[in-house]
Amino acid sequence: MAYELYYWPTIQGRGEFVRLALEEAGADYVDVARRKNGVDALNALLQAPGLPPFAPPFLKVGDRLIGQAANILLYLGAQHGLAPRAEAGRLWVHQLQLTIADLVTEAHDVHHPVGMSLYYEDQKKEAKRRSAEFVGQRIPKFFGYFEGILRAPARRQPYLSGKRLSYADLSLFQVVAGLRYAFPKAMHRLAPDHPHVGELVERIAARPRIAAYLASRRRIAFNDDDIFRHYPALDR
Amino acid sequence: MAYELYYWPTIQGRGEFVRLALEEAGADYVDVARRKNGVDALNALLQAPGLPPFAPPFLKVGDRLIGQAANILLYLGAQHGLAPRAEAGRLWVHQLQLTIADLVTEAHDVHHPVGMSLYYEDQKKEAKRRSAEFVGQRIPKFFGYFEGILRAPARRQPYLSGKRLSYADLSLFQVVAGLRYAFPKAMHRLAPDHPHVGELVERIAARPRIAAYLASRRRIAFNDDDIFRHYPALDR
Repeated sequence: MAYELYYWPTIQGRGEFVRLALEEAGADYVDVARRKNGVDALNALLQAPGLPPFAPPFLKVGDRLIGQAANILLYLGAQHGLAPRAEAGRLWVHQLQLTIADLVTEAHDVHHPVGMSLYYEDQKKEAKRRSAEFVGQRIPKFFGYFEGILRAPARRQPYLSGKRLSYADLSLFQVVAGLRYAFPKAMHRLAPDHPHVGELVERIAARPRIAAYLASRRRIAFNDDDIFRHYPALDR
Repeated sequence: MAYELYYWPTIQGRGEFVRLALEEAGADYVDVARRKNGVDALNALLQAPGLPPFAPPFLKVGDRLIGQAANILLYLGAQHGLAPRAEAGRLWVHQLQLTIADLVTEAHDVHHPVGMSLYYEDQKKEAKRRSAEFVGQRIPKFFGYFEGILRAPARRQPYLSGKRLSYADLSLFQVVAGLRYAFPKAMHRLAPDHPHVGELVERIAARPRIAAYLASRRRIAFNDDDIFRHYPALDR
């Protein structure tokens, strides 16, 4: 039985964290909204009685709907060995995922500080003010944190949770890719401060299933309707 | 062995979601940073080598540190019967928690749209613009969602996950309390649209351990250094 992923068909967005896990797992899945009438199917499930998700992405597994990207990953991590089995490791990976999710929200809010119902063009001045803090303080703080974990001398292990890849590694890869698209100058300048994060990103990109996915048409290109947007005025 | 909760000592903040779960569980815990030199202890753990959390709140359980409020609740839910044991119910409650966490972030960003390193006074105009969307669209959307779950005719059950209280119910209580403090006019006007949410809030407040907690000095009062802030200019 194939998983059914429901997410907006023209952006990577928060759905991409789920897509990367499904791809790395080699899971059988349908990206429903990218098919004909798929967005209608997505909207119908959001309106369905019962226990609907609040918003996409959500995953249909048989007759169950699982919502919230980090929660979907909690599920997939257990199903496909993308998280440790033991409780301590499982919670550690989830904690990292929620920290990455916070960074993703901040990356989005840089270009939409005043509200998501307004166009970027209506909040350019505010976005520019906000980007100063995001690029100057928040990116360094988050990446300093992940770098510290990967660099810890007692560990010397390739992934955030140790020897084995987890969904949090895939998500960190995605955030770095997105931030490099959105803030190329800032990320280039900051790269020497987090070499282990850079190595992790290369290691993920070279995994055979991820490499195949990134080269495929299944990978939607970054674009400026998405979470990560390249507005040169916001890059420093 | 008592849990050690680490969170900023003068605000409810994201720590409050954890405090409510610990209180409802009748768990033995120390709110470390509210004790003498407690903030130093908190900062020392954030700087410790190994696998530190990114930010408070975090919970020390023996020699383990568990970070991210929703992740701590995932742990406590399993330990103290504050979430269903079966996987489907466990993920459903966590999904709700992550949706509540999104609402909490938006409630914070209303008064800090341009950046958290700036004072509210330096972003009042932007905050006023953002509050129009938050009060006019986002609060109704989130509460419409929770109301729909509680009202579903097939359910007729008192809590978000059915017959039994979960940590998501406690968190929804906290969000409603916070929004009533921050946006009294708007919440008063919107209350008739979500009567089941209002009933849930009363039901939680009347639970003996929660009632005792709310009346105790352990409950920090709402204040305007916190996530939920009462700035009359932002209330409608």
